[in-house]
Amino acid sequence: MDELLLHEDPRSGNCYKIRLTAHLLGLPLQRLQYDILQGETRTTEFLSKVNPSGCIPVLQVGDHFLPESNAACWFLGENTALIPDDSFDRANMLRWMFFEQSAHEPNIATLRFWLHFVGENNLSTQQKSQIMTKRIAGDEALKAMDRHLTGREWFVGDAISLADIALYAYTHVAEAGGFRLQDYDQVCAWLRRIEDLPNYVPMD
Amino acid sequence: MDELLLHEDPRSGNCYKIRLTAHLLGLPLQRLQYDILQGETRTTEFLSKVNPSGCIPVLQVGDHFLPESNAACWFLGENTALIPDDSFDRANMLRWMFFEQSAHEPNIATLRFWLHFVGENNLSTQQKSQIMTKRIAGDEALKAMDRHLTGREWFVGDAISLADIALYAYTHVAEAGGFRLQDYDQVCAWLRRIEDLPNYVPMD
Repeated sequence: MDELLLHEDPRSGNCYKIRLTAHLLGLPLQRLQYDILQGETRTTEFLSKVNPSGCIPVLQVGDHFLPESNAACWFLGENTALIPDDSFDRANMLRWMFFEQSAHEPNIATLRFWLHFVGENNLSTQQKSQIMTKRIAGDEALKAMDRHLTGREWFVGDAISLADIALYAYTHVAEAGGFRLQDYDQVCAWLRRIEDLPNYVPMD
Repeated sequence: MDELLLHEDPRSGNCYKIRLTAHLLGLPLQRLQYDILQGETRTTEFLSKVNPSGCIPVLQVGDHFLPESNAACWFLGENTALIPDDSFDRANMLRWMFFEQSAHEPNIATLRFWLHFVGENNLSTQQKSQIMTKRIAGDEALKAMDRHLTGREWFVGDAISLADIALYAYTHVAEAGGFRLQDYDQVCAWLRRIEDLPNYVPMD
């Protein structure tokens, strides 16, 4: 495989997913860090070379650049045990990864960013008006996860897959966004299972 | 392959993606229609049998249920020309499908739903306050697409892939959400390429 370089902000769960995937697989991953709060991914150099959208993470594979955290996890996970062999299970894994980006991250990760890193007093009126909607939708996502994990150890099949990694990233730090993880027993047990894995690496 | 049944609302672009994928591949697909505005996906039967989250589309494969539009497209597209052979291209295709769910659909599809189906006068104050943010973010997504398509016929590689199908669904009806497609030349040319494909099927 070409050399792997992760363009990241280590506080971002989206970036951490890729690092956790690489670590679980024992893949060497170089890291190049940016401070998104200081606009370091909005420089002319970053926009022209790494990602014209100014977003991280971007996984650099040799001379190729791959934005979108879950796509990067897929790239690293192909032909490994982190992607199920069964065709329906593989699609079902992607289902939970799309759920993560559509129903989970926009609520749980955004509230963590707003409340923990930006600070409630610094939010715009428009952002403040969305807190309650995001709180309710984030709790719905956690409820859906808790319901699905009842009677299951992992999101898909009998082993950890990329779906678990993608969902772990922002779930395990959801309390920084004001969510009460203690309300979700199955989710809490599942978080512990991931943290007990050999090669687990915590967020910085 | 097991019998395929799509639980859908035909006005939804997310549902249409799956129908377009099946049509391009010549796969027979049964359809079961629900009116989301009438709450037909929130009945006890739907929640207990089809999807406890009450969301559509759900692709039913025999006795198995697969929510999330892009995961369903993946399931249908595996081992076909709609998913690239090259490993980086395949991840890059998923990159645009995740982009569609995180940066495109929440803005472009939501404004279409609010303005065209619900009606601006029926929106909550909270929804109304988000229109401008979603307008700007939706235009950013269209700009990113236009930039990427410059010098390219398709999103990834030299042929249509699931990335094109996923992005086509809500882009081609973006004007119903107040977006001006004429501002995006490359996007307009790409929409025509898709509509010229043999086996293309329009949205109902």
